[in-house]
Amino acid sequence: MAMHPGGPSIIMKYAGKDASKLFNRLHPSNVIETFLDEAHVVGEIDMPPDSAISEEEIIAEKLRIENLKRLPKVNQIYNINDFEAVARAVLPPHAWAYYNGGSDDEVTMRENHYAFHKFFFLPKILVDVRNVDISTTMLGTKTSAPFYCSAAALAQLGHPDGELSISRGCGTEDVIQMISSTASYSFDEILDETKPGQSHWFQLYVKPDRKHSIEMLKKCAERNVKGIFVTVDTPMLGKREKDFKFRYGEDGPNDDDDPITSYDDPGLTWADIDAFKKVSDIPIAIKGVQRSEDVLLAVEHGVDAVVLSNHGGRQLDFSRAPVDVLAEVMPILRAKNLDKKIEIYIDGGIRRGTDVIKALCLGAKGVGLGRAFLYANSCYGEEGVKKAVQLLKHEIALNMKFMGVTKIEDLNSSMIEKRDSYGFHRDSIYDANYETMRPIGLKDIPTN
Amino acid sequence: MAMHPGGPSIIMKYAGKDASKLFNRLHPSNVIETFLDEAHVVGEIDMPPDSAISEEEIIAEKLRIENLKRLPKVNQIYNINDFEAVARAVLPPHAWAYYNGGSDDEVTMRENHYAFHKFFFLPKILVDVRNVDISTTMLGTKTSAPFYCSAAALAQLGHPDGELSISRGCGTEDVIQMISSTASYSFDEILDETKPGQSHWFQLYVKPDRKHSIEMLKKCAERNVKGIFVTVDTPMLGKREKDFKFRYGEDGPNDDDDPITSYDDPGLTWADIDAFKKVSDIPIAIKGVQRSEDVLLAVEHGVDAVVLSNHGGRQLDFSRAPVDVLAEVMPILRAKNLDKKIEIYIDGGIRRGTDVIKALCLGAKGVGLGRAFLYANSCYGEEGVKKAVQLLKHEIALNMKFMGVTKIEDLNSSMIEKRDSYGFHRDSIYDANYETMRPIGLKDIPTN
Amino acid sequence: MAMHPGGPSIIMKYAGKDASKLFNRLHPSNVIETFLDEAHVVGEIDMPPDSAISEEEIIAEKLRIENLKRLPKVNQIYNINDFEAVARAVLPPHAWAYYNGGSDDEVTMRENHYAFHKFFFLPKILVDVRNVDISTTMLGTKTSAPFYCSAAALAQLGHPDGELSISRGCGTEDVIQMISSTASYSFDEILDETKPGQSHWFQLYVKPDRKHSIEMLKKCAERNVKGIFVTVDTPMLGKREKDFKFRYGEDGPNDDDDPITSYDDPGLTWADIDAFKKVSDIPIAIKGVQRSEDVLLAVEHGVDAVVLSNHGGRQLDFSRAPVDVLAEVMPILRAKNLDKKIEIYIDGGIRRGTDVIKALCLGAKGVGLGRAFLYANSCYGEEGVKKAVQLLKHEIALNMKFMGVTKIEDLNSSMIEKRDSYGFHRDSIYDANYETMRPIGLKDIPTN
Amino acid sequence: MAMHPGGPSIIMKYAGKDASKLFNRLHPSNVIETFLDEAHVVGEIDMPPDSAISEEEIIAEKLRIENLKRLPKVNQIYNINDFEAVARAVLPPHAWAYYNGGSDDEVTMRENHYAFHKFFFLPKILVDVRNVDISTTMLGTKTSAPFYCSAAALAQLGHPDGELSISRGCGTEDVIQMISSTASYSFDEILDETKPGQSHWFQLYVKPDRKHSIEMLKKCAERNVKGIFVTVDTPMLGKREKDFKFRYGEDGPNDDDDPITSYDDPGLTWADIDAFKKVSDIPIAIKGVQRSEDVLLAVEHGVDAVVLSNHGGRQLDFSRAPVDVLAEVMPILRAKNLDKKIEIYIDGGIRRGTDVIKALCLGAKGVGLGRAFLYANSCYGEEGVKKAVQLLKHEIALNMKFMGVTKIEDLNSSMIEKRDSYGFHRDSIYDANYETMRPIGLKDIPTN
Repeated sequence: MAMHPGGPSIIMKYAGKDASKLFNRLHPSNVIETFLDEAHVVGEIDMPPDSAISEEEIIAEKLRIENLKRLPKVNQIYNINDFEAVARAVLPPHAWAYYNGGSDDEVTMRENHYAFHKFFFLPKILVDVRNVDISTTMLGTKTSAPFYCSAAALAQLGHPDGELSISRGCGTEDVIQMISSTASYSFDEILDETKPGQSHWFQLYVKPDRKHSIEMLKKCAERNVKGIFVTVDTPMLGKREKDFKFRYGEDGPNDDDDPITSYDDPGLTWADIDAFKKVSDIPIAIKGVQRSEDVLLAVEHGVDAVVLSNHGGRQLDFSRAPVDVLAEVMPILRAKNLDKKIEIYIDGGIRRGTDVIKALCLGAKGVGLGRAFLYANSCYGEEGVKKAVQLLKHEIALNMKFMGVTKIEDLNSSMIEKRDSYGFHRDSIYDANYETMRPIGLKDIPTN
Repeated sequence: MAMHPGGPSIIMKYAGKDASKLFNRLHPSNVIETFLDEAHVVGEIDMPPDSAISEEEIIAEKLRIENLKRLPKVNQIYNINDFEAVARAVLPPHAWAYYNGGSDDEVTMRENHYAFHKFFFLPKILVDVRNVDISTTMLGTKTSAPFYCSAAALAQLGHPDGELSISRGCGTEDVIQMISSTASYSFDEILDETKPGQSHWFQLYVKPDRKHSIEMLKKCAERNVKGIFVTVDTPMLGKREKDFKFRYGEDGPNDDDDPITSYDDPGLTWADIDAFKKVSDIPIAIKGVQRSEDVLLAVEHGVDAVVLSNHGGRQLDFSRAPVDVLAEVMPILRAKNLDKKIEIYIDGGIRRGTDVIKALCLGAKGVGLGRAFLYANSCYGEEGVKKAVQLLKHEIALNMKFMGVTKIEDLNSSMIEKRDSYGFHRDSIYDANYETMRPIGLKDIPTN
Repeated sequence: MAMHPGGPSIIMKYAGKDASKLFNRLHPSNVIETFLDEAHVVGEIDMPPDSAISEEEIIAEKLRIENLKRLPKVNQIYNINDFEAVARAVLPPHAWAYYNGGSDDEVTMRENHYAFHKFFFLPKILVDVRNVDISTTMLGTKTSAPFYCSAAALAQLGHPDGELSISRGCGTEDVIQMISSTASYSFDEILDETKPGQSHWFQLYVKPDRKHSIEMLKKCAERNVKGIFVTVDTPMLGKREKDFKFRYGEDGPNDDDDPITSYDDPGLTWADIDAFKKVSDIPIAIKGVQRSEDVLLAVEHGVDAVVLSNHGGRQLDFSRAPVDVLAEVMPILRAKNLDKKIEIYIDGGIRRGTDVIKALCLGAKGVGLGRAFLYANSCYGEEGVKKAVQLLKHEIALNMKFMGVTKIEDLNSSMIEKRDSYGFHRDSIYDANYETMRPIGLKDIPTN
Repeated sequence: MAMHPGGPSIIMKYAGKDASKLFNRLHPSNVIETFLDEAHVVGEIDMPPDSAISEEEIIAEKLRIENLKRLPKVNQIYNINDFEAVARAVLPPHAWAYYNGGSDDEVTMRENHYAFHKFFFLPKILVDVRNVDISTTMLGTKTSAPFYCSAAALAQLGHPDGELSISRGCGTEDVIQMISSTASYSFDEILDETKPGQSHWFQLYVKPDRKHSIEMLKKCAERNVKGIFVTVDTPMLGKREKDFKFRYGEDGPNDDDDPITSYDDPGLTWADIDAFKKVSDIPIAIKGVQRSEDVLLAVEHGVDAVVLSNHGGRQLDFSRAPVDVLAEVMPILRAKNLDKKIEIYIDGGIRRGTDVIKALCLGAKGVGLGRAFLYANSCYGEEGVKKAVQLLKHEIALNMKFMGVTKIEDLNSSMIEKRDSYGFHRDSIYDANYETMRPIGLKDIPTN
């Protein structure tokens, strides 16, 4: 029970009941065989299936289904933020709380997005832009666009097809999907959806027992995964208060809950990276780098790529925005002639084609989006995923024309300006979607 | 159909109906003879005129006429922003959406205005300011004030007289009007309104077939046009979501809509500018320059002027404000002794006489206003245009007295201070007029 | 009629009626004998007095008297902003519009106050502060505090005793009053209120006919005025739109109104200052200086003092805040060893003892407050003026103790820090009092 | 009466009545024997006890008791701000006004918190963080965490057990409590609660008669107090307007009230510090330092520690935030090799574990929290105090793991970045709790 990433509370809550339906929605189908052996089977439950689903959960599900009927047509979605607005309306409250929340006061989560507002363009004119090519190569794999679908946990919370429909949509649109270690479907179930020519990456949480990781690396090789992204920013689960309030409800967490919920082994070190490099021929990337010194260390350790990331603002609050770290690290790499030795990716806060172009101008090889695809998939399944990709592709191509640029590699740092001060103008749609943190509710107590 | 700047959707929508009334409101009278030959006539429509006007459009028009009756007197208008407030109330929704909107998240559109808030004055005292002269010369033409009426599409959306009444108002007040390539009235219809001594410029969109452009240059010479402004920031139409939401309605755009809507040939290059220079003796300016390097290129190519402009924030979002580009480029030109070789104009975000004075202090030869005249004309026709000019002239003259300056050429960069941070104080009237971007509507779905 | 500072409209409005009551409320008793000779008497009016007072004015006056009954006790006023809150409630609308308004978008008016938020203190500890002396000397006159009551027009709009009760309050509290050229009471009426030991300054608007100014200088000498403050920022009246909307009402201004309303001769130059210096032994100050170069010119011309001022944000919008100009000019003066040759004052935006201390730290000899005294006097007459002085004196003495300083001259620039960015924290009371600019009203027209 | 820290008004208000109950709630039990001798007994009161408690006070107390019944469970408190939200709801209005208020416009009070938003982290990855130790040593005393409970007056206003339950909670959690000179309970009563191994510090206000201070130092030695914190920022009480409005009510303060309320002798100087050092072997710290020069002076005078503090924003408004002073002074100390000669603490605005870590990165030895413990204690007594400590410890340990750091001494200035501009993102919970300053109420007077 102490090893359960979701803490012991939830296990105690459903003890003695058939929690299969809820369990299946939150875990991949192979989770039991992977983590629990025969010794853990203690007996049969004498009670109808689904008895553990609460009245509230049934009502929430009914509401969600009702709301889904009134969904806007997918063609009415004009931008990535629109998906979030729809998701906010149709997701069950606990799924919305889990997806949209960040840690502590959510400063970093919002900073991730608004940091892009510090960057302005210096476009060129009178360039022949009749033909614009936005395809690129990431970790040696050709792909149709300079972005990928990043790993995000529990896609089934938002849509019954979970990561499967995300995979289908990405396949159709030739966009790389990074498979999460904490996906709702199993690694194999997701890869079974692979379309011809489609590429996947794998996001790895390293458990205390390294055998499990080594096995995963082998499995990735077998299934032709094109990149391993070792996540290094999650020795413990961040303090995500919106999520906790739903998870623990009126009782609050008990004393055992918080300290135990870890995703990565907190003992993970550079030595592990070296070890993984030895057993695998697949390119290995480190996801969760947040300072230039660690990018240089990654080069020393022969790592193929890093993702500048703060886990979408869900771990250490007051981490810097990845785009800011990118703007700091690239000149350092160039000065040391190391910028061709490693690929730099960022994720966090990306909503517009212009955000992607900014990252590319600064020197990123590509960018990842997580929540964007969760929201698109939750609302529309595969159709939503495809639409999200198309919107971003269209915005990237259109704005590259406005920049006077026809190929990804022509974007460079002379076409962008970084300002010290934040953007002055609110992103109204983003703000409208943002769920403000609230002080503890006091039921009927009137304030002074 | 694929060449239609407004996309194929709108053509399909009215296929088989008499759309004359709507068509005539949106296009100049010569558009058919210019772009369609006899081969396109496929037959006669057997149905009463106006049958394509929808019920909603009829109601909107009635409402507009009703609202026009309650217009404030033009003398109650105290500033340019007041025109926008009235326009917001009396324009039909689709016209308001088309005029007021920008691209993407409208950061640049708002930045254009608020960037002026970074500049503060250092006025002189105890100067004899009994006589102040605000007249100046632009592209060799004497004019009564250091601003001009910039090109803006479809003036007839807001007022039946469209560009004609704008021309009349500008003529009376001796202000130069730049005629739009996408005006509601034809080039000739507008020029037929010319008053004695009045000057016009022409804004040119270059089509793939250059013959059309060359013909326009000749026509400009015949009709004594004093300047050609080649627009270079519109290889495609910007992603103007407010406008799209009205244009495509509940169905959203179909797959063919977006990519096709281009105004300029995306193949337009500096070679075309050189070619235009050869066939025309009229001064040629480039409209839509956004980086210092391109101003220097313009000097090299012998261009007479550039307009630092981002198309009113309707093309590339996160373009810099023209006044910021101006503050960057003028010292570079002066350092290279090129500041007398080319005239620099800006447009975008100008609402007050102080905005104009700021641009002149920084080194602009003059400034253009687009929406300001559209709003004034939409509300009051010619009277509104005249009032807009008078308000600006009065504000410029009054504030030049406060600056301790009696002639345009005495304004210089020692009288202005640029701050790194944005102005702190909201422009309340501007903000009240600004139509906030909204996430997609979800009809009756309650948010969590 | 063309010379009337309030414009011709108001004269036309009351033509043929007995406007005595209104006239007397707005003008000093000697204004007719000073500006109009016998030739202007055209006959008698055959109609009861007060016939020109409109129904609305009678209702507004009744309301004001009603509100005055519910005034908070003067002891419940805790700070200068509280006076403004009360004034906002009890002043007739046109008086509130006239007093509280600024020019254009009121950026400078608000900047004046908020610029103080850029300055933070570096207080000393463990200094014996049992005895704190806040008295000082300004233009050679000993006074009890480092601030003075600045000139402000038309005190009678807010209180029947107008400048008389201001003079009485200042006299009791030993604070210098600067008498306005546009006071509601005459120069002599105000000076007749002088208490033993009380000092006055005079604020001079220079009219085209210099004889009038020379006469005023002589009169000042006769009545023992201790300083002449020549105002130089008002060649025309600023564009104060809140005030205009009340003044011109539903018709808007007519064409003759605006351009004529001037306070100073726009032909006023440094030669006039030299001339005034020759005919007067009273110290002469220039009020309205806004750039360092002009402070240096003032030293050259032997002027005794300058007031860094933008007329309370009522003239040139986007003028810099006086405290910012002060922070710029003092180091320049010190570097040239001129800081003892001239006294520097500032006015504009001062509400707290800490504001005064900031100005003194930066090098100001003293500061002026205008609206603060108008509001205090409007609400409570002499008692209000005394309370305003006491509050400021208390705040200055208290905060000097917290600064570890016992005498005005011990305040210096090492005790203050200027930040580039504005203060982050709203001044909630100030903001609540601020009357937001509004776009033109559209009666019953619903906005889109 | 003139020596009463609360001013004479309150004494006059209850003159002739039995005010025992109110008196006992606000004063420690030994206050009479310490400050008043037999000569002050003037007779017996012939009236039932509690007769001085007003009807309003009885109602407020009833409401508080009612609200306390609906308290959220302490486990539902997720962060320090939540305590404030609950306190705001359940505290009697006068207690809330006293606790939450600051001086003047409360700029410094808010700045204290938001200044932390200027600092962002540069965390390390791939460090073994299985074991994190957050214990440290402060003034030579081992303690379980790098923060302490700072002195705050009148804990009994919020909870009947006042400082006693704070002491108990701190004892259980091994956190140092600094005992206030103006505690509701007496020095001895609080120390009698000491648990085995628990440490206390004492906060000293120095009275004009130094004998009293010397006696306190001796008493501290007798009771094994581990540190003396001489407060030096309170020669007078700050202008805390929220508190005053409750204290003086509808009549406002009378003329004698304000100037007398002092806590420290305003004649306190460095010579006193030297004298205290001579009579005491306990480490002596100065609390209330606000400039680097005074930290250097403290080193010269052999002081063991300073607390960079502005008294929670309750004294000089526009004092700088302690974390900003810290960021300024530490590099100076290091450059002079003095950083090991003195311990630097800060208090003010701390709400999160990340705030504590920021201070430690910059070089602080520890941080103090005042209001946080007052609020926790007011709502939940000892349980609340323990929960507050646990939350902070958990946040510190968790975020140190995210920083890639296992010991307090490994936190350093290379792991933090200071920005010139304020954080852009509102702290929504903090803001929701903040009680906005309001202009004076005008009962039924409608504003214009």
